[in-house]
Amino acid sequence: MCWRRERVLRINATAKIGIIRVLTTDDIHLLNMHGTLIEALFPNLDVVSRCIPNHPKGVYNSETEASAGPLVVRLAREFEAENCSAVIISCASDPGLDMARKNVGIPVIGAGEAAALLGRAFGRKVGVLGIGSSTPKRMERILGDLLVGYSKPEGVENTTNLLTAESQRAVLDAGLKLKQAGAEVIVLACTGLSTAGSAALLSKVTGLRVVDAVQAAGFLAYYAVTF
Amino acid sequence: MCWRRERVLRINATAKIGIIRVLTTDDIHLLNMHGTLIEALFPNLDVVSRCIPNHPKGVYNSETEASAGPLVVRLAREFEAENCSAVIISCASDPGLDMARKNVGIPVIGAGEAAALLGRAFGRKVGVLGIGSSTPKRMERILGDLLVGYSKPEGVENTTNLLTAESQRAVLDAGLKLKQAGAEVIVLACTGLSTAGSAALLSKVTGLRVVDAVQAAGFLAYYAVTF
Repeated sequence: MCWRRERVLRINATAKIGIIRVLTTDDIHLLNMHGTLIEALFPNLDVVSRCIPNHPKGVYNSETEASAGPLVVRLAREFEAENCSAVIISCASDPGLDMARKNVGIPVIGAGEAAALLGRAFGRKVGVLGIGSSTPKRMERILGDLLVGYSKPEGVENTTNLLTAESQRAVLDAGLKLKQAGAEVIVLACTGLSTAGSAALLSKVTGLRVVDAVQAAGFLAYYAVTF
Repeated sequence: MCWRRERVLRINATAKIGIIRVLTTDDIHLLNMHGTLIEALFPNLDVVSRCIPNHPKGVYNSETEASAGPLVVRLAREFEAENCSAVIISCASDPGLDMARKNVGIPVIGAGEAAALLGRAFGRKVGVLGIGSSTPKRMERILGDLLVGYSKPEGVENTTNLLTAESQRAVLDAGLKLKQAGAEVIVLACTGLSTAGSAALLSKVTGLRVVDAVQAAGFLAYYAVTF
């Protein structure tokens, strides 16, 4: 018989976190999805979600990344003014991250940077899976010589494409390609893959550890406000 | 009146973690101290502590670092054979880290690497405080252009020196020097500073965020076995 101790941790929920969605939407369920994921994993975080305007297909190339930056900074300032303890930019290309850090005093966590930092923590070969043309620059710098390849699911051009069964198949194929290339850990470079719940499936099919970018950002926000 | 919600998180304590102390001691209290710190912070981790032989003053220069490496690997293999889910090397210079990763299949977390990765997550200027002659190489590589300086408390030559009131004063002075040099975050590059409880005091005196290396390693081990 397996005896499992159960410990109970009591947490005062006092930390309000702002999460910036770079996908413009008026669908409240979709807007709150990353915040809900983070709240479920880290019960001491209360997450408020807002989205930038004019980006109905999210951030998926250098133009949409550049135009998102100042809009992200504006929301970060709003969240700070409303007494948030930290801000998450829920996009793997981290638009506006450096600028936001210059403009607010609270910690700003970028989902791409967070995923790369946690991916690096295992010291194993890393494959990156995203929907852009290549590994986001900041992730590439952090992963350095651990990075063995980048893979993009076929037929997926932006985050809204990810919510079909067909694209989920393409995501799994992209993951298997990274495994063939020698990856021991897969880092997801698109937070739309969190919305689609791809990490668990990818991990099951490839047998590899998969770092989800929204989860990674939540984890580092939890560190920032807890320690 | 301030109303605070209390959420309750129920955790099954199933993850056994091995922690490798690089300070040789037969003082059970001292041996278990880092494990006890980690268990208090992360209640789903059960931490088993062991120390390498022949290092009564710990690891504090290139000779002791080199001689510690193979001894660390031996303990990592022991922990894996005893069904640990992850191993922590509780030393900021991460002796034997790459070699241990090649020799075991479970995640191996180095305290120095962990502290540098979490220090980097804020994107702010980082000062490193340790007892060696300079920032450990691996931490230097990870921190890159965020690193603004290294500071060593005067009169402290090895980890056993840290447990006096005088050395605590020297640690605070070293922290204030880093602040003067422009540091916005202090990363501790000696796990003896965790034993001495320096992070909280340093944070209070400098007003800066201080990343404790044992806490950082525990945090990443928690990630490794939980997600």
